Amino acid sequence: MDKCEAVLKLLLEAVQSGVTAENQPNSNEIPVGVSNRHIHLSQADLNAIFGEGYQLTKMKDLSQPGQYACKETVTICGPKGAIEKVRVLGPVRSKTQVEVLTGDCFKLGAPAQARLSGDLSGTPGITVIGPRGSVQTTEGLIVAQRHIHMTPADAQRFGVQDGQTVCIKVEGPKGGMYSNVAVRANDTSALECHLDTEEANAMGLGSSAKITIIK
Amino acid sequence: MDKCEAVLKLLLEAVQSGVTAENQPNSNEIPVGVSNRHIHLSQADLNAIFGEGYQLTKMKDLSQPGQYACKETVTICGPKGAIEKVRVLGPVRSKTQVEVLTGDCFKLGAPAQARLSGDLSGTPGITVIGPRGSVQTTEGLIVAQRHIHMTPADAQRFGVQDGQTVCIKVEGPKGGMYSNVAVRANDTSALECHLDTEEANAMGLGSSAKITIIK
Repeated sequence: MDKCEAVLKLLLEAVQSGVTAENQPNSNEIPVGVSNRHIHLSQADLNAIFGEGYQLTKMKDLSQPGQYACKETVTICGPKGAIEKVRVLGPVRSKTQVEVLTGDCFKLGAPAQARLSGDLSGTPGITVIGPRGSVQTTEGLIVAQRHIHMTPADAQRFGVQDGQTVCIKVEGPKGGMYSNVAVRANDTSALECHLDTEEANAMGLGSSAKITIIK
Repeated sequence: MDKCEAVLKLLLEAVQSGVTAENQPNSNEIPVGVSNRHIHLSQADLNAIFGEGYQLTKMKDLSQPGQYACKETVTICGPKGAIEKVRVLGPVRSKTQVEVLTGDCFKLGAPAQARLSGDLSGTPGITVIGPRGSVQTTEGLIVAQRHIHMTPADAQRFGVQDGQTVCIKVEGPKGGMYSNVAVRANDTSALECHLDTEEANAMGLGSSAKITIIK
């Protein structure tokens, strides 16, 4: 290697390390993902309300790998009222799960139960209406418990474990702190703190917001 | 006074002091009042949208002395959308003021500005529509900054002052802490912490909820 090559190599290394440092996220900050009301459907329920063998139409990938928003929407209906245009998320799941806002529960006339995704035992049922039919589920209406998706490596970096609950701190004029935020750490996750629209609005959080963990 | 009378008097005092202690509120707890979107109208704007010389019809007294919800509702409209059935609160005020939720601002297409009641300079204007006409205000659309109404005696008890901001702590599974809660202490107030529907739902607060001040 001549002198010129050596200088070029050093320059390249210096530039690359600069770029890396710039792209490195502040190790304490976690991006926020804001969820509005949505529904995950089982294939059986999808068949019942959109027609036998129906396939969902992907509209947009979501931040969590493999998850996507679909073109399809449904109407959900409880004892006191209905909510139209509830977005379907894909892919289909083993059980239908409807994630609504606390305020939606008053409108539907169903109790608001803060649960983690998949933990549906004892939650209220709901009627789901599509273009080809409707289903009455026996359970599955939840308000998503706020949670942070992360990889096991993220969990190690933050000093937390899958299943643990933490507090999160929100800066800004409408800031504060939320307790009981569940850590969901696994290899198929991308780092993101999921709050619902009411939780984000209450703290003035937009789509580029960040939070920090307080243990 | 014979012995019997003296014993009765002591018994009565003991019972009365017990009753008093039971009825005494926990000196740290403050009841929560949840505000949905609403509007305060000036007499000029009331005339313009309900007709000349119109008088509001009281429906229900509110917790703050002299304030009441009216039978009347209006439609409010921004550049992106309208919201119907916005409750009018009485009595009329010197300036029209529309208090909405952060989520409403997205629907209306107007920036959400957290302000204390009456601090309207630089806030967005809004169109207000009633049965006899409409007005376009030049300012007055706000998201109410969370605040605690109290008497000067309450303020002394809590060790806070009118105009100060404090943090409040919320217990429960969806609990946490809100920063920047303004203290509004004067002789015409009743002790109550005012949060909007999104702020209450985000922390799982119902109508009988209580919070405590953290300084």
